[in-house]
Amino acid sequence: MKEAFCGDGGTWRFPASQPLQLDSGGQLAPLEVAYRTYGKLNTDKSNAVLVCHALTGDQHCAGEHPVSGKPGWWNRLIGPGLPLDPARHFIICSNVIGGCMGSTGPASINPETGQAYGLSFPVITIADMVRAQAMLVEALGVETLFAVVGGSMGGMQVLQWAADYPEKIFSAVIIASAARHSAQNIAFHEVGRQAVMADPDWRGGSYALHGVRPEKGLAVARMAAHITYLSEPALQRKFGRELQRDGLSWGFDADFQVESYLRHQGASFVDRFDANSYLYITRAMDYFDLAQGHGGILAEAFKRARNVRFCVLSFTTDWLYPTAENRHIVRALNAAGARASFVEIESDKGHDAFLLDEPVMNAALSGFMASADQARGIS
Amino acid sequence: MKEAFCGDGGTWRFPASQPLQLDSGGQLAPLEVAYRTYGKLNTDKSNAVLVCHALTGDQHCAGEHPVSGKPGWWNRLIGPGLPLDPARHFIICSNVIGGCMGSTGPASINPETGQAYGLSFPVITIADMVRAQAMLVEALGVETLFAVVGGSMGGMQVLQWAADYPEKIFSAVIIASAARHSAQNIAFHEVGRQAVMADPDWRGGSYALHGVRPEKGLAVARMAAHITYLSEPALQRKFGRELQRDGLSWGFDADFQVESYLRHQGASFVDRFDANSYLYITRAMDYFDLAQGHGGILAEAFKRARNVRFCVLSFTTDWLYPTAENRHIVRALNAAGARASFVEIESDKGHDAFLLDEPVMNAALSGFMASADQARGIS
Repeated sequence: MKEAFCGDGGTWRFPASQPLQLDSGGQLAPLEVAYRTYGKLNTDKSNAVLVCHALTGDQHCAGEHPVSGKPGWWNRLIGPGLPLDPARHFIICSNVIGGCMGSTGPASINPETGQAYGLSFPVITIADMVRAQAMLVEALGVETLFAVVGGSMGGMQVLQWAADYPEKIFSAVIIASAARHSAQNIAFHEVGRQAVMADPDWRGGSYALHGVRPEKGLAVARMAAHITYLSEPALQRKFGRELQRDGLSWGFDADFQVESYLRHQGASFVDRFDANSYLYITRAMDYFDLAQGHGGILAEAFKRARNVRFCVLSFTTDWLYPTAENRHIVRALNAAGARASFVEIESDKGHDAFLLDEPVMNAALSGFMASADQARGIS
Repeated sequence: MKEAFCGDGGTWRFPASQPLQLDSGGQLAPLEVAYRTYGKLNTDKSNAVLVCHALTGDQHCAGEHPVSGKPGWWNRLIGPGLPLDPARHFIICSNVIGGCMGSTGPASINPETGQAYGLSFPVITIADMVRAQAMLVEALGVETLFAVVGGSMGGMQVLQWAADYPEKIFSAVIIASAARHSAQNIAFHEVGRQAVMADPDWRGGSYALHGVRPEKGLAVARMAAHITYLSEPALQRKFGRELQRDGLSWGFDADFQVESYLRHQGASFVDRFDANSYLYITRAMDYFDLAQGHGGILAEAFKRARNVRFCVLSFTTDWLYPTAENRHIVRALNAAGARASFVEIESDKGHDAFLLDEPVMNAALSGFMASADQARGIS
């Protein structure tokens, strides 16, 4: 099993004759989708699980990251003996379109110009991301997914799957997510975009042509966003007013540990992420409002998903996508007649909890998956 | 009375022989403190009220602002028939040192170089600001203050007055404030400072020498900070997902009203505020921890203030300086044996409520001031 757990994958290249239809009206071609798989598709093709990543995640959800060498971002949930187990499940994770880990995005070559798209890349949506995933899943020979699972922006994709392809999914897990971006969510993203675009090295999005990168702006964007991922109590517990050194610097160095931590978050982020991808993906999230295409009634989005088994999880101190937003999803699922289990998990870790060691999250997901495995006859 | 209400004032210039002693160990000289007064000092000099401004406020708390022509930032609380009334009170408001509305700050001329201080300006503290206020008050012939009143950073100054000059104040009003900056408070300020310093036009703080200003960086800083001044429900109620125009732009223009609003907040802020002042004042707030100089026990800071009458007000949806932080102050006052009245005001406006139309705030302050007026024999 170890071999399978290390993961397979690569980049699926769709020919120009198979473009991605976009919500904006255009098409994206050629389309490439970078992905990774763990485990094997069983003979009746009933055990495929699609894992959807968050804003700055990628396809390397488990095993070792080939670039950073770090553990996959959901190694706590995916692996031998864990809720998503390559011994039972054929796990697929793909980099979203607009991303920067191999799928077509603003850093890809625009076939019309032979140069990086930059801002000529079309604005994409969560539904566009999901449409590309559906193409990949089909290309991999999978007709129906046993489960679609994701946290944060990954959860938005799961919701979109339930709305657009309910007949193709058996179960759906949404963790710390929302069915629409709130004014505050949009506001924080706009600050981040303005920080990137204020950096003169952004060059109107054409920085690749000039051999520069808007690192300072992107670092500021990440710092602002990072605060929203943590709860106030978690920040206080982790850092409080602890100093970096004995005494204050009486200057603008990082005096407090929390400053140093944030600076590190910003600096390390720019090494692994593309600034234009950050703009496009945050835009996709801001545009996300699942009810909007259904007369403003979220339950309508789920009316074809009555047979899907849903699991929704939230965290008590998540103020980015708080319990109220997750409960809003559950109420809509109930109104649509879908079966939904919902757990609000006590945690002081804020939004980031979905990526951290949260035994209750693991237990809830284990229970849900075991029951779904049984219903689907997966062993 | 109208004449007096329009306000008097100017800039008090202390000679080099009267430097400001700084917490950092140095001195600041010459010292200038820009101020404005409303009303007249009564014959027994018992009716002086010091109003302390917040991070981006200034001495023009009432009447008309001489530069912008806009109403004073606390016109709802200060004026004829209002809790602070120039007919009864001699109201003093001064620009904090480090500020940019006339008091000595980083844009002032460093006498040693003949050029703007820039980063050669010393890092200052809330206690330094208060020390300069005490010098001004004395220079204006006021021996004791009937009241010291402030919201947000203004409230921090009030707390510092109570700790450092309890014998000089009769009453103290602290609104939407905190006795120390939390890790999250520091984190948001650090994002703002990094945004300013990331702007190449900041030039290591010497932008004045180069005839430029780090406007983009300062605008981003203001946008991030502004989100923390509003509650999530207020943002949702005011803007929700409302669009600027019919339909989405499918680009990076301000599609949502909340984006446009934030951009406007950033753009208008840079017209009225100095970037280095922003760095210095946020630093002073981050350094603020009143208990620290008293063995870590906040009540100890108030032990000489037993005879001061305190009023503490907080707002239910203020997540910048939440009720818990204000309650922490009240508990310390109680432990010190001081008399403190405390009201948590129901409001969905977040931290900004202290600057807005909040009838309960006005009523609470009216009641508190009327009782204090009576105790002090002011009519």
